[in-house]
Amino acid sequence: MKQDLDTLMKQAGLDALLVSGSAAHNPAMFYFTGNVHIGFGDLIKQRGQEPVLFCNPMEREEAARTGLKTKNIAEYKIPDLLKQTGGDPVQAMALRYQQMFIDMGLTAGRVSIYGLLDAAQSFAVFNALQALMPEIEIVGEMKNPVLSLARETKDPDELEHTRKMGAVTVEVVSKTAEFLQSHKSKNGVLVKADGQPLTIGEVKRKINLWAIESGVENPHGVIFAIGRDAGIPHSTGNPDDVLALGKTIVFDIFLQEPGGGYHFDFTRTWCLGYAPEKVQQLYDDVRAVFDQLMQETEANMHFKILQDRTCELFEKHGHKTIRQDPLTQEGYVHSIGHGIGLDIHELPFSRPPEAVLRPGVIVTIEPGLYYPDQGMGCRLEDTVCVHPDGSIELIAEYPLDLVLPIEEA
Amino acid sequence: MKQDLDTLMKQAGLDALLVSGSAAHNPAMFYFTGNVHIGFGDLIKQRGQEPVLFCNPMEREEAARTGLKTKNIAEYKIPDLLKQTGGDPVQAMALRYQQMFIDMGLTAGRVSIYGLLDAAQSFAVFNALQALMPEIEIVGEMKNPVLSLARETKDPDELEHTRKMGAVTVEVVSKTAEFLQSHKSKNGVLVKADGQPLTIGEVKRKINLWAIESGVENPHGVIFAIGRDAGIPHSTGNPDDVLALGKTIVFDIFLQEPGGGYHFDFTRTWCLGYAPEKVQQLYDDVRAVFDQLMQETEANMHFKILQDRTCELFEKHGHKTIRQDPLTQEGYVHSIGHGIGLDIHELPFSRPPEAVLRPGVIVTIEPGLYYPDQGMGCRLEDTVCVHPDGSIELIAEYPLDLVLPIEEA
Repeated sequence: MKQDLDTLMKQAGLDALLVSGSAAHNPAMFYFTGNVHIGFGDLIKQRGQEPVLFCNPMEREEAARTGLKTKNIAEYKIPDLLKQTGGDPVQAMALRYQQMFIDMGLTAGRVSIYGLLDAAQSFAVFNALQALMPEIEIVGEMKNPVLSLARETKDPDELEHTRKMGAVTVEVVSKTAEFLQSHKSKNGVLVKADGQPLTIGEVKRKINLWAIESGVENPHGVIFAIGRDAGIPHSTGNPDDVLALGKTIVFDIFLQEPGGGYHFDFTRTWCLGYAPEKVQQLYDDVRAVFDQLMQETEANMHFKILQDRTCELFEKHGHKTIRQDPLTQEGYVHSIGHGIGLDIHELPFSRPPEAVLRPGVIVTIEPGLYYPDQGMGCRLEDTVCVHPDGSIELIAEYPLDLVLPIEEA
Repeated sequence: MKQDLDTLMKQAGLDALLVSGSAAHNPAMFYFTGNVHIGFGDLIKQRGQEPVLFCNPMEREEAARTGLKTKNIAEYKIPDLLKQTGGDPVQAMALRYQQMFIDMGLTAGRVSIYGLLDAAQSFAVFNALQALMPEIEIVGEMKNPVLSLARETKDPDELEHTRKMGAVTVEVVSKTAEFLQSHKSKNGVLVKADGQPLTIGEVKRKINLWAIESGVENPHGVIFAIGRDAGIPHSTGNPDDVLALGKTIVFDIFLQEPGGGYHFDFTRTWCLGYAPEKVQQLYDDVRAVFDQLMQETEANMHFKILQDRTCELFEKHGHKTIRQDPLTQEGYVHSIGHGIGLDIHELPFSRPPEAVLRPGVIVTIEPGLYYPDQGMGCRLEDTVCVHPDGSIELIAEYPLDLVLPIEEA
């Protein structure tokens, strides 16, 4: 959580964090600012001090909405700095950072940098700044960056954002089920009023519109994949496919708050009209593991235990797993879950053995089985959080049913 | 244009370009790949050679759709490199780039880097790579980067993308006008069927939906600002404002192709019902300058001439301009236009005196006058391109009318 930042900075030997870029779709900056219209800002957080946001005076009202201490970045006059450096933008930007650092009393120590930025700018400007300030060590953390560690556990406000996204998600999923069931079947496929088959592309377009109407973003698209595509975890579905009865449809939806905020992640597997025996069996096997995991998930357990448990249970039912064969394309082929927040995939991950479901984490639980050559796949995914008292909260409830009954035309 | 890259690289003394990151919403990568689902890729273009795209085998079909020469990035095994470097992701990534460079025969020379990347990664990995390969000079260009110079002029395919975005834009604008005019006025404001006033927020939501329905993105939002807000060029409009008759509405819309592709930029100023005399006068002054500029715009002219001309014409009519007072908040307060493409604002800009409207540029022409204290503002903006034969094309036509007639309830 944000309140852990000073401790985490101390552990990492960092004296300050520098976060740069826009607020929108830039998790490191959004983490501090929330959803405001800041086109470009710099935020400096020194250990033991409140963060300070430097931004453009045109955006001062937006900056004030963040509740952060703000400073006017225009006081560091780029036109003057450009003159001073003979028109060199790299040196001008580096001088600007140097002056900002000095004004903050930051003249020595380790400073780590964050934010989605133009690669040339990060490389050139921060190297120039490093040369200007030899007493400062600029650090580009890639292994468990302090901000990622802080973001691994969520505070009550972040949980509330996630709950709202959960509510929007199940509303959109519910509309999708109603929309499908408002169609009748003819010759084994859903047809529209004009008798033409409904396509995956049309369904996806509707899902996208409902998301936008609810005021959220759908920046990564949705997975709505039928038959063989449902058997390939990363297939998003072919827009021209028709909606045939008796085939698995994997519907994985991961909406995001406007401006690049908190995500929610959710999957159901549906079968229109009826489920053939082998599909029902596939679903039953996934459902049994899903129910078992939801019961067994506990605060402070190693996340990897859920992965091992999933493999064990699926193997008992005769399915291949990645534990036995890391390259298998059939059976259980992925991880059991991941943290979710400003990034769709973030800490904790179930892969490294040391990851623990600490109070405050928000994670997905998503067992699945995939048989592309048999034209089917099934995944069930809910998102849960771990409370400080150790209790587990299912963030958004929605029926797990496989079959969506369909009327015949 | 892309075909100029080798010449531009030679002028800049560059031997290779390295473009990294996703294809989506990453202009430098999108420029080469177009709209494909590539989550992370590296593209290397050596001078005098075709670019090569390194990407994940899971995305090989998407990569093939780019028409680029591709290589499998998974052949550079990160797990092995991590072992080799004791689990250091920075060194592992740097070694991977080193091997890629060596396999391409790129062992010496100047390599410039591009793409929207995590700042820590750009700083740490490219510095580590620099240390591994002292014969290579890694360059972070910030002043007229070679890719920006290439992108300044558009080839026929890019123009076609822009034309399509222009067509979508005027369709959405036309729907917006129809939507407003489908409402009646009561006590000087537009009202809905339930008698409640229509708000700016509701109009913006509709605009957003029409954009999404047309299959395009609206990542920056639209400006739909009335009255005093219309008099502040960067105000996007207050969602709670009602649609009062007789007030200027500045409607500036800048949609983007899905996945972060080409933009279009367009502004009209509307007045619902009727125009009070001072509003009509404001509009007439802007319109006269707009018409004049559209006539005077010529291939190979300095862009700044249009800026000077605008100031001259507005000053003649008694308006303040930024030429007289760079800090004025009233009168003509901004630039006359900018290039448009994968970035909403890109080369050429009308500010530096040397920028020229070369064949291939696509630029906006957008004179405006702002009087926030009088509760009004007016801007008219069209986007034009300069053809190789020197002719100017207005990319999307739409009436310039100020008043939208409204029925009384």
